[in-house]
Amino acid sequence: MEIKPYIHTVHYYETDKMQVTHHSNYIRFMEEARIDFMEQLGYGFEKMEAEGIASPVMSVTCNYRKPTTFPDKIVITLHVEELARLKMRFGYTMKVGDTVVCTASSQHCFFRNGRPVSLEESLPDFYEILKAFLKEEEK
Amino acid sequence: MEIKPYIHTVHYYETDKMQVTHHSNYIRFMEEARIDFMEQLGYGFEKMEAEGIASPVMSVTCNYRKPTTFPDKIVITLHVEELARLKMRFGYTMKVGDTVVCTASSQHCFFRNGRPVSLEESLPDFYEILKAFLKEEEK
Amino acid sequence: MEIKPYIHTVHYYETDKMQVTHHSNYIRFMEEARIDFMEQLGYGFEKMEAEGIASPVMSVTCNYRKPTTFPDKIVITLHVEELARLKMRFGYTMKVGDTVVCTASSQHCFFRNGRPVSLEESLPDFYEILKAFLKEEEK
Amino acid sequence: MEIKPYIHTVHYYETDKMQVTHHSNYIRFMEEARIDFMEQLGYGFEKMEAEGIASPVMSVTCNYRKPTTFPDKIVITLHVEELARLKMRFGYTMKVGDTVVCTASSQHCFFRNGRPVSLEESLPDFYEILKAFLKEEEK
Repeated sequence: MEIKPYIHTVHYYETDKMQVTHHSNYIRFMEEARIDFMEQLGYGFEKMEAEGIASPVMSVTCNYRKPTTFPDKIVITLHVEELARLKMRFGYTMKVGDTVVCTASSQHCFFRNGRPVSLEESLPDFYEILKAFLKEEEK
Repeated sequence: MEIKPYIHTVHYYETDKMQVTHHSNYIRFMEEARIDFMEQLGYGFEKMEAEGIASPVMSVTCNYRKPTTFPDKIVITLHVEELARLKMRFGYTMKVGDTVVCTASSQHCFFRNGRPVSLEESLPDFYEILKAFLKEEEK
Repeated sequence: MEIKPYIHTVHYYETDKMQVTHHSNYIRFMEEARIDFMEQLGYGFEKMEAEGIASPVMSVTCNYRKPTTFPDKIVITLHVEELARLKMRFGYTMKVGDTVVCTASSQHCFFRNGRPVSLEESLPDFYEILKAFLKEEEK
Repeated sequence: MEIKPYIHTVHYYETDKMQVTHHSNYIRFMEEARIDFMEQLGYGFEKMEAEGIASPVMSVTCNYRKPTTFPDKIVITLHVEELARLKMRFGYTMKVGDTVVCTASSQHCFFRNGRPVSLEESLPDFYEILKAFLKEEEK
């Protein structure tokens, strides 16, 4: 399965008085890229909602390597860093051209109708797909 | 009834690469000031919700007079510009020190349980209070 | 000259607890669309900066017709509403499918090296291009 | 030295369609609280700028414990988690009432005139003050 990277073009209003993209915005770019990734996997927001599944963010980590600014095109690729019974972690690599500008991760759990559930049991097909995106060294 | 002006201290992340407060943020300052104003009048968000009343924004206008930046303290005063059967308009004056930096207005209607209602009939007490904030020339 | 409309896909983080796009974000969509429009006209940000020209926002008006939400695709078209010696006004029409969700305008002046200038004298070619986008009834 | 905690009242526009504070905003609350903390220590933004010192964010980590929403008052306390030659890390605890809603950290380096510098050598007084805020177990 071939996944296209997500591209976020930095908006003027995302810069700050240091003339670079404000660091808080990368957390939003992660969400954009994650939603696009899930959509490409066939498990977009609407499908998840229809299944009664929510996957709130438990934690984020973001390492800022190089500043970006308007109107840079940030190319974001995702992989699965961890896939456990009740939670999972996505990894993100953000590049402008060949330069890595940010690496990041976000941890998620899964709720169905307000109760934590095992993804493997609730959505076994999706679980198998995600497994294929575990980086080799992390399998 | 004495209303205290609302103060918004500009945050670093609200500036842009022109090194001034990004113009979109003033619309947010208006919301902050309006919610505070309603609270001071005794008709805060929770009370309105308990009454089943929502007052969505129908339109906004914002005139940028002077740039502001982090960490300016913007002092915002409100008045009622128009009070009609099905809609009303708030006016906003924003100052830093003695300088007017922005004047603005927002128009609202009122819904109860998803249907437009007359404020005068739904919340007559509140209607009377708002009337007192109509600028003299507009009464 | 054929201009392609600008498309903004509403992000999850642009919604609010009313489950719709927060009204302040439309001001940002206007900026995105305006920058794209200028770029298509051949007068993008970089070119304007190279010419030493800045065009700050003097005022905005935004009329909210219908709510939008994640992940609506908002299609934004621009035209020139007013073109005077020292200022101009863009008009915006935002649609989701066939439904107009928002109409808006923004007024701008032009500065070269910190001083207000006439666009017609500073950038006569650009002035002529903009003139072609004046709506018939406004010429 | 007694430091007052920083209080951020969640704004309506900071919520999302899950009806809670969008997770990206906590990164902004951290910045607000950090700037206030530095100000209270006598090393506010203006003083740092006058000294030619910038302290960009190298990384952030944010653990979301409990959702918050408009109009919660989030009380934020800071401590120093790490103080090394070329970088330091702040820790943040965010509470609503007695409930910890978020714990976080941010790592910073120091630049003077665009070059990385040792805080201990550049601003020895500030370095000593920060040392006093190292948590006991981390000294």
